[in-house]
Amino acid sequence: MSSSTNVNLSAVLHKVLDLRVESTQMPEKPGYNEVILKTLCVGLCGSDHHYWKHGKIAHFEIKDPLILGHETCAQVVEVGPGVHHIKVGDRVAAEPTLPCRLCDYCKTGSYNLCPDVKCHGTPPVNGTLRQYFKYDADFCFKLEDNMTNEEGALIEPMAVAVHSCRRAKVSVGNSVLICGSGPIGLVNILVAKQFGATKIFITDINADRLKVAEKLGADKTILIDPKLSDKENIDQVMKIIGKRVDASIECTGVESAIKLAMLCTKSGGKAVLVGLGPSEVTIPVSETALREVDVRGIFRYTNCFPLASTMIASGKIDVKPLVSHHFPLKDVVKAFETFDSGVGIKIMVHLDK
Amino acid sequence: MSSSTNVNLSAVLHKVLDLRVESTQMPEKPGYNEVILKTLCVGLCGSDHHYWKHGKIAHFEIKDPLILGHETCAQVVEVGPGVHHIKVGDRVAAEPTLPCRLCDYCKTGSYNLCPDVKCHGTPPVNGTLRQYFKYDADFCFKLEDNMTNEEGALIEPMAVAVHSCRRAKVSVGNSVLICGSGPIGLVNILVAKQFGATKIFITDINADRLKVAEKLGADKTILIDPKLSDKENIDQVMKIIGKRVDASIECTGVESAIKLAMLCTKSGGKAVLVGLGPSEVTIPVSETALREVDVRGIFRYTNCFPLASTMIASGKIDVKPLVSHHFPLKDVVKAFETFDSGVGIKIMVHLDK
Amino acid sequence: MSSSTNVNLSAVLHKVLDLRVESTQMPEKPGYNEVILKTLCVGLCGSDHHYWKHGKIAHFEIKDPLILGHETCAQVVEVGPGVHHIKVGDRVAAEPTLPCRLCDYCKTGSYNLCPDVKCHGTPPVNGTLRQYFKYDADFCFKLEDNMTNEEGALIEPMAVAVHSCRRAKVSVGNSVLICGSGPIGLVNILVAKQFGATKIFITDINADRLKVAEKLGADKTILIDPKLSDKENIDQVMKIIGKRVDASIECTGVESAIKLAMLCTKSGGKAVLVGLGPSEVTIPVSETALREVDVRGIFRYTNCFPLASTMIASGKIDVKPLVSHHFPLKDVVKAFETFDSGVGIKIMVHLDK
Amino acid sequence: MSSSTNVNLSAVLHKVLDLRVESTQMPEKPGYNEVILKTLCVGLCGSDHHYWKHGKIAHFEIKDPLILGHETCAQVVEVGPGVHHIKVGDRVAAEPTLPCRLCDYCKTGSYNLCPDVKCHGTPPVNGTLRQYFKYDADFCFKLEDNMTNEEGALIEPMAVAVHSCRRAKVSVGNSVLICGSGPIGLVNILVAKQFGATKIFITDINADRLKVAEKLGADKTILIDPKLSDKENIDQVMKIIGKRVDASIECTGVESAIKLAMLCTKSGGKAVLVGLGPSEVTIPVSETALREVDVRGIFRYTNCFPLASTMIASGKIDVKPLVSHHFPLKDVVKAFETFDSGVGIKIMVHLDK
Repeated sequence: MSSSTNVNLSAVLHKVLDLRVESTQMPEKPGYNEVILKTLCVGLCGSDHHYWKHGKIAHFEIKDPLILGHETCAQVVEVGPGVHHIKVGDRVAAEPTLPCRLCDYCKTGSYNLCPDVKCHGTPPVNGTLRQYFKYDADFCFKLEDNMTNEEGALIEPMAVAVHSCRRAKVSVGNSVLICGSGPIGLVNILVAKQFGATKIFITDINADRLKVAEKLGADKTILIDPKLSDKENIDQVMKIIGKRVDASIECTGVESAIKLAMLCTKSGGKAVLVGLGPSEVTIPVSETALREVDVRGIFRYTNCFPLASTMIASGKIDVKPLVSHHFPLKDVVKAFETFDSGVGIKIMVHLDK
Repeated sequence: MSSSTNVNLSAVLHKVLDLRVESTQMPEKPGYNEVILKTLCVGLCGSDHHYWKHGKIAHFEIKDPLILGHETCAQVVEVGPGVHHIKVGDRVAAEPTLPCRLCDYCKTGSYNLCPDVKCHGTPPVNGTLRQYFKYDADFCFKLEDNMTNEEGALIEPMAVAVHSCRRAKVSVGNSVLICGSGPIGLVNILVAKQFGATKIFITDINADRLKVAEKLGADKTILIDPKLSDKENIDQVMKIIGKRVDASIECTGVESAIKLAMLCTKSGGKAVLVGLGPSEVTIPVSETALREVDVRGIFRYTNCFPLASTMIASGKIDVKPLVSHHFPLKDVVKAFETFDSGVGIKIMVHLDK
Repeated sequence: MSSSTNVNLSAVLHKVLDLRVESTQMPEKPGYNEVILKTLCVGLCGSDHHYWKHGKIAHFEIKDPLILGHETCAQVVEVGPGVHHIKVGDRVAAEPTLPCRLCDYCKTGSYNLCPDVKCHGTPPVNGTLRQYFKYDADFCFKLEDNMTNEEGALIEPMAVAVHSCRRAKVSVGNSVLICGSGPIGLVNILVAKQFGATKIFITDINADRLKVAEKLGADKTILIDPKLSDKENIDQVMKIIGKRVDASIECTGVESAIKLAMLCTKSGGKAVLVGLGPSEVTIPVSETALREVDVRGIFRYTNCFPLASTMIASGKIDVKPLVSHHFPLKDVVKAFETFDSGVGIKIMVHLDK
Repeated sequence: MSSSTNVNLSAVLHKVLDLRVESTQMPEKPGYNEVILKTLCVGLCGSDHHYWKHGKIAHFEIKDPLILGHETCAQVVEVGPGVHHIKVGDRVAAEPTLPCRLCDYCKTGSYNLCPDVKCHGTPPVNGTLRQYFKYDADFCFKLEDNMTNEEGALIEPMAVAVHSCRRAKVSVGNSVLICGSGPIGLVNILVAKQFGATKIFITDINADRLKVAEKLGADKTILIDPKLSDKENIDQVMKIIGKRVDASIECTGVESAIKLAMLCTKSGGKAVLVGLGPSEVTIPVSETALREVDVRGIFRYTNCFPLASTMIASGKIDVKPLVSHHFPLKDVVKAFETFDSGVGIKIMVHLDK
């Protein structure tokens, strides 16, 4: 790497709050099923922010400098042998997880559970906040011409929602309760509607976020009052939803919200845990066990990018309102600071400007 | 009811620890799809014992005198119109739950979740510890000639295990961890083997129970030391099972065992909660959510009696060792006292002697 | 019954082409879970027409006079005990099949396969082209206020499409090929879209029908030329669809269309046979077997009325364009003659006028 | 290739009936996830015989000399980088199909439907009737010590049966009808029993084969008389099986047997087509469609080797009786001639002797 010349500018996290834009090595020649990608834009995710601010998530820790970023829209600049579905000039969304392809999980369709999966922007694997990188072509999904770069970058959070709705078995005519109106809660509104949900309830403790939720199509928003007891909030929600929902999707990780999701889900329904919370929570498992409510989590996604992409390309959902801020790569620190301030929804860093 | 003559002798629980053998009303003429049954024998279940000793379970409470019992082998003595699959003289196992047949749950195959289900021996519905009762014919399953009365009564706990194994998605070649070697844990060994499980691990804090588990076919029994920490016990179990199991079936309701079941289940596997515990438990939901381990309970069973019956009739499993004690109806109080003393496995009350 | 007075006017088929409007017996007092319904309107179905013209379908034969009709919107005029979800004055769609509720199929959610199912308007069970009839309340589905009577009657064919799409496993983002643009093919367009299909292809040999299909939302209509060979038509369709579809729904019963559906379905997809054809057909089963295309039929529907009703009530689909003709009961013969002439799509007979 | 020295002796099919034992190139150094295997024994399959006798199967045609064989037990002689689950000296079963690992089918667990799958011994990919070959390590499954080499080679046909039973949804307590008692029909007996089938019926036109079926555990064998009409044979079978079976597995490819399988399967059951027949067959699809019997084929197997291996290792099934003849590689032509004569069941060619 030559840091004297400005090649392959990248956002490198050296240690907590020490994020620098600097040159990193250019990718080498692409091999079989590989492509060289030029990054167009990258959405910031809670995990990026967490690494920047705290240096680790669970057992993943920043020990060496790491390039952040994994919600990626990029352009193909070179293709290796065996690549047929994309060509130079195509814009793609890059699915950030590369599984081993060899284990039982990979072979049975659950590659997200592969114990050897590598993920962009998760230590020690560099992310995509850099101008150029090499990637496996089959994890690059071509954007339709009617899609913007930002939409391409938003396929990643959309894929999380697709996986959540699949795990929740959301189907036509269903009622769904989403807990939390952060970016993942919000994309779940859009995706659950595409899955045919006809009644979508969403909660938050922040009224402004609920307004965004309403704009995105939530049928009913519910303001949770943190000063009330769990029981009072649950009673309030039950009163609003009328009868228990077919599925709930919990996107906060907060114990009281997990309880709420479990107790407001109908017998035989699914309560899906998407939000990451403390390692142990105290929850009413007996009651939901007796009503056969399945409590099930998600880990990223598996085979969700194609559907997420189709949804956007179909024109049936509009993810553009999700993007609240734009920064060029040189201002990436400002982008993180903006994220940290809590304003906005999705912050987009542009590398092509 | 005439208590002056000895008609239809029944075990009636008047209040806590006040169980009397007395006459109750004879059943009336059977209507469409109904039969009159003469009870042959009834197995005692933990819930019978609980009502006897504590007067209630959850929100089910003994307010009026109640006939206990629901693990029933009986003989058909009269059939109503529309009954074709059984005839006078046939021995049957009577599935104790009668759903409404009208609601969505009933119509979609999950009649156990019917909000209007009635269950024998659960207040305020009388049970089967009485000589004669009327019942819906389609919930009476004919015993094959090679089955004993006791086997007929054991179909009910077997049905619990069938439902557990179905919910756990136990399939051929699976490894299964069963927590707890009480009657339900033990029948789960037998049933999981029929579902094709090739490695069955079972735990208990009682070494004697584990010996029974071994006789019934557990591949490896694991003594849990309550004096050790959760972590120490989990480490011990992980060391013994080598790698996480495909499915776990928790039959104790104890928080530490729920944790164990969850943490020892492989990514993408199922942890099924059968044991009834406290209303809230503190459990490592984040870890299992990220590994997509589904935590799912059971409520009784739905469409499980036919398979439980087929399993016994096939001769491939021997449930007889489960029956440790026999009492005639007149000694039913002794039967409950024996249960209370904790000796034995399954106690059978005979009404035909 | 007095046929001299005009009580309970009904359309009774006495024999082939001999359909008379005459009085029939008034329904008796409703029992448990029963209601008396006043028929509002009834849609004519191909099977009604077939009985009228040919006197039988498969082994179902008109031996005694039979009241036809089974696509029914009605109003509750009296409720029996145990009826809580509907009340006098409510408008309902009456699901025409009443299963036995006792067999394995009924208990496991597949009541359409119940060997003792009774169906309105299928010999020897009278249909709903009569002013009043008694019915099981749990098979009456209340219409939302925003639904018209005609929409209520259309729930029945919608339910066929719901069952077809479920059997076809149509899900979000799927491509679907529908063979045949008759009423069932057309409602499958509407329903498949609600199931999330993003590309719907539909065929017919009649260009006018395809125009209706296009209006209802088919993405691409394909005119089949009966003068071409099967191979030529298949090649033409493959050229238009580009790549094989995720699912096909065959609604003609014609051998060449069955072939087309099978061969144009992707490996691992479903080819669902809805149209009734000859008892034996010559089809390329080897090819589809090797590509693991499942060939699966449907029989009516099971648990589909609620969803069909929700779909219409949601306002997302507009079934009104399907109704092409209206007749009062007194002109029911004209209604059948109009059906027979092949004009129009759905013919509605009104009994409330 | 040097044919002057005896390196890597192989059975090469030059053209129809022209099979020669000759030297072929030694495999090169193993790359990432690759191993060099020394073949121990290979079972002959119908397709090997078909290529030998007819030079082609469907569109697969022998154009250049081809090494036959794909039911393989081998020993690891060298391992490449990244190989951890097997080591030099281990005996393995080599799954003969190598999918692309990149397409949707591969990523969703159906790698058998991968359009770019390569299969050992299917033109133009050389098979395993050679002393040494290079292979992908993750498709090599280690044999337990208690397994013989012949059992290792039999894992391949066992895997076909595992896939068949999975597609047939065979589960505990099921009745199964197997059509045809050739090697694949026979292994289906063994596997269906492991899946919990409690009643297995099997047909053939050859009484001797049915004796083998009986020995292997068929509950009832049924001799089909080719001189009787289809209807007579179906009536006979229905009389014997009493009521329609839960699942049928058709292993002959003959039209009359496909009919039989379809018509003898219960409503809602699965009729699985394993045997390869003519490109078009005339079958009663209307009847089975109305009873919702799914007609579904199989293509090889996906993720079935591990379970097939576990089944044998468990000691619960004994596949050894299936092997009727043994030949050393030098007598491979005799092996094919023996196959052609129709005697015996499974013929094993040994390369380690």
